[in-house]
Amino acid sequence: MPYTLGLDYGTNSARALVVDCSDGREVGTAVVDYPSGNQGVILNPADHHLARQNPADYLHVLERATQLALDVAMIAEPSFSKDQIIGIGMDGTGSSPLPVDRHNRPLTSDPRFSNNPNAHCWLWKDHTSIPEAAAITATARRLRPHYLAKIGGTYSSEWFWAKIWHCLKVDPDVFEAAWSWVELADFVPAVLAGVTDPLVIRRGVCMAGHKAMYADEWGGLPDQEFLAALDPALSCLRDRLYTKAHDASAIAGHLCPEWADKLGLAPGIPIAIGEMDVHYGAIGCGIDEGTLVKVIGTSTCDCAVVSAGKTVADIPGICGIVKGSILPGYSGIEAGQSAVGDIFKWFVEGVLEDGDLHGPLTADASALKPGQAGLLALDWNNGNRTILVDQRLTGLILGQTLYTTRAEIYRALIEATAFGARVIIDRLRDHDVPVERIVCSGGIAEKNPLLMQIYADVTGCEMSLSRSSQACALGSAIAAAVVAGAHPDFATAQAAMTGLKDTTYRPIPRNRDVYQELYDLYRSLHDAFGGVTESASLGHVMKDLLSIKARQSL
Amino acid sequence: MPYTLGLDYGTNSARALVVDCSDGREVGTAVVDYPSGNQGVILNPADHHLARQNPADYLHVLERATQLALDVAMIAEPSFSKDQIIGIGMDGTGSSPLPVDRHNRPLTSDPRFSNNPNAHCWLWKDHTSIPEAAAITATARRLRPHYLAKIGGTYSSEWFWAKIWHCLKVDPDVFEAAWSWVELADFVPAVLAGVTDPLVIRRGVCMAGHKAMYADEWGGLPDQEFLAALDPALSCLRDRLYTKAHDASAIAGHLCPEWADKLGLAPGIPIAIGEMDVHYGAIGCGIDEGTLVKVIGTSTCDCAVVSAGKTVADIPGICGIVKGSILPGYSGIEAGQSAVGDIFKWFVEGVLEDGDLHGPLTADASALKPGQAGLLALDWNNGNRTILVDQRLTGLILGQTLYTTRAEIYRALIEATAFGARVIIDRLRDHDVPVERIVCSGGIAEKNPLLMQIYADVTGCEMSLSRSSQACALGSAIAAAVVAGAHPDFATAQAAMTGLKDTTYRPIPRNRDVYQELYDLYRSLHDAFGGVTESASLGHVMKDLLSIKARQSL
Repeated sequence: MPYTLGLDYGTNSARALVVDCSDGREVGTAVVDYPSGNQGVILNPADHHLARQNPADYLHVLERATQLALDVAMIAEPSFSKDQIIGIGMDGTGSSPLPVDRHNRPLTSDPRFSNNPNAHCWLWKDHTSIPEAAAITATARRLRPHYLAKIGGTYSSEWFWAKIWHCLKVDPDVFEAAWSWVELADFVPAVLAGVTDPLVIRRGVCMAGHKAMYADEWGGLPDQEFLAALDPALSCLRDRLYTKAHDASAIAGHLCPEWADKLGLAPGIPIAIGEMDVHYGAIGCGIDEGTLVKVIGTSTCDCAVVSAGKTVADIPGICGIVKGSILPGYSGIEAGQSAVGDIFKWFVEGVLEDGDLHGPLTADASALKPGQAGLLALDWNNGNRTILVDQRLTGLILGQTLYTTRAEIYRALIEATAFGARVIIDRLRDHDVPVERIVCSGGIAEKNPLLMQIYADVTGCEMSLSRSSQACALGSAIAAAVVAGAHPDFATAQAAMTGLKDTTYRPIPRNRDVYQELYDLYRSLHDAFGGVTESASLGHVMKDLLSIKARQSL
Repeated sequence: MPYTLGLDYGTNSARALVVDCSDGREVGTAVVDYPSGNQGVILNPADHHLARQNPADYLHVLERATQLALDVAMIAEPSFSKDQIIGIGMDGTGSSPLPVDRHNRPLTSDPRFSNNPNAHCWLWKDHTSIPEAAAITATARRLRPHYLAKIGGTYSSEWFWAKIWHCLKVDPDVFEAAWSWVELADFVPAVLAGVTDPLVIRRGVCMAGHKAMYADEWGGLPDQEFLAALDPALSCLRDRLYTKAHDASAIAGHLCPEWADKLGLAPGIPIAIGEMDVHYGAIGCGIDEGTLVKVIGTSTCDCAVVSAGKTVADIPGICGIVKGSILPGYSGIEAGQSAVGDIFKWFVEGVLEDGDLHGPLTADASALKPGQAGLLALDWNNGNRTILVDQRLTGLILGQTLYTTRAEIYRALIEATAFGARVIIDRLRDHDVPVERIVCSGGIAEKNPLLMQIYADVTGCEMSLSRSSQACALGSAIAAAVVAGAHPDFATAQAAMTGLKDTTYRPIPRNRDVYQELYDLYRSLHDAFGGVTESASLGHVMKDLLSIKARQSL
């Protein structure tokens, strides 16, 4: 009976998961926090856009989490032994590129740079590169409009080229010293495979592909003329990157003796291509056409797939429609909200300064009816990824009286994220991407029935939960099972290894009606502050909220 | 050496003050809380608009606070004796009307009504009468447009007729049982004077006058035809009210033996006409032409005076321009913000749930530069009194990131009230009411140098503090001194009895510039959500705030 190992690199910690390939049973798991920074993230109090990670942490948790998960598996399942692991899959946050030297060593291993945040990994949520992203968008609009069509019309400050260009501008020493740049999700598989030449690393099609403006149809990465129009130094870097990006049907390499020894696994077992965490998460949730997978965590990623045979038009504001980016044989469609759990966390830890309040606030908020508090919020504390693709947006709460409570605000923040989720669904459906059911994953979805019910009521969709609580790691393990030959393809592997929890949240008609009214008001604010409408008439908003409040308070 | 007694009925407590008429020295003071309700206010959790007070509390505190203040004076100043008190002045919140029987007894003294909130005093901040206020405005617009011109174009839900009409609609038994209605500020002087016939009570020109749509030029109260158009029952009530309203040069009566005995004062001493608390507060702050007095408390009242000889045009959104309403011989101009201290209190007690945080938050907020937090708020948690005259407005905060702190929000709320204050000043100046300096009174102004500096920076005006910390009670004592003959007129009395504290807050030019930018953004939100502009372009607001934030964080 074969097993695979799935690794999932999140924002604050990494997880290792030992999975039974026959039925998806999770026989051992372990989570290890990144030792550096503030909960794994290196911050700059003077610049809230900055978010970096220490590459040394990645190797530390790789060894530690894997060993722990294997130990747990051996205790839980006496018949299990490490040599039954037939493959490894890995996913990570992204776009999270890190500068490496000629031998694929992180620049931070050089004492000159070990304490320099610019030589660290530029975490997905680092937004220091807003000006560069805007300039890339403007340049592409002028010179290569077809580049933009593939990414929803706007290059994101969260992505590869924006970050590298920003590094070039603010810290040319680091840029000069970097021989190449590697995405986290390509770096770890390369380390496991013993790849010591950046040119040999097998890169994944989502991050190193899509988020680096790569497409087979224009010969891979953006051409040198375009990059030179940004900065000649970027043009030179192009030759030190890669020429091909792969989907999950490819193998990143085979476990090298050094890491086989460290982990106690058999050398030579295949390592699946690294994908973005939520992409493997979507696979772990059993994604197929018609299913929207939402991985709800600090931020939210939404994934859908459409058969690769079907033509999918570019969708404005949807950052990614990429063949093979999620599931081989399908176009993967990726959207997301820049902050979801992070907003609740901000309110509870940052404003109320008591991290234990999530439970009590959820309980109090559950006693409220939709609209009863008269509040309305925008979920933009970390900008808006989809559909506005604009980091230079911020949060908003309105409708406060002198009697507004913290629980009412907490509920309004949950509702704001639900409205943001609905904007994405509306945009997908408007462009013929079917959304028939929603499968969620992530701690917040599992722990917060109130949030799930609000999402069902706001979106009008049935909300299910992935059976696995660690869908990303499970998806990585599924990819490993496929490349290791335990299943012939992903569909068979998903059928065997994924499932749903028993509880399903169905829209409650009377709540849907109220939320439809509130959503219309949300859209008024969204379009006005998001710059969608040039002129907005907002004098009715507070009054409408008060009317709904009065009705819902009866 | 004569003394007078000033009484000040606030929202949560009442104060008595013994004042030396020669120099304004305050030789004895006492504050007594109203025993009923929540800090003196009877609330309804299901309807945040409701705010009532128990009339029995008024008599309780009258006796208790006076006795305590006299006791304190006798201890502090051994030469003082009660028979040196030559007059009594009194002010109260308003419009705060209460229903009384044929003998000027509060309806709550009837056991049938003792627990009925509708038979209590309808506190100034009671906003249950919003529909009635709107209907009065609409009817006046149709039938008596000149009524509206005097009150800024809109009848307020905080005022006399709206409240009484609402009582008629929701509780006809109480309306029927009420022989008449009396403003708190007329009720207490009448009790002291032993007046037991509502028709004999001397009413003040601001509340019973202005806020009851009274004007000498149309023969007093609104005519019966107009009132009948609202409801015939209101038309009948008119005859049981009053035909004349008086300014502070009039005497409300003379201390009756019963209350002389209770208070230990000489019977027959004159009692000044009751005024609205902030009007006597303005006198206690030394108001004259060119001086704006701001009494900053739970809400803010702004008072200005213009010589009665000068023609003052009606000012849109300014609720009161009334001859004699503040200072005899002048037109009193009254404006205000529906919540100021109440907003800070709401945030600290209602959201953060820790009433001790005002100090620490002020300290942390003081370390911030204007605009550094990137936040912008509207000060409408209790609606907007001036210049929008709209209770159906609510609070708003925008600009939140994932790093926004409670201190930043606290500062943004202070700034919002400063912007609201500036809107009023701009409106006054636009209509030729001079505002050359600002004198503040109230606990918040005294205790919060940060607020005073922000107000100076936002308004561009020098901000001074009244020497007296109890300006309203002092103003009442000044009125008593004038009616008792200790001074020939108010100007002489003010010159002798009022003054300023040493500290003055002057605008800091670099802060003014930033606040000018923020004020422009505030006005965009104000006009958009307040319905001033039909169509607003708001896509720039968050971005402008981020730009200012970036600049101010350097």
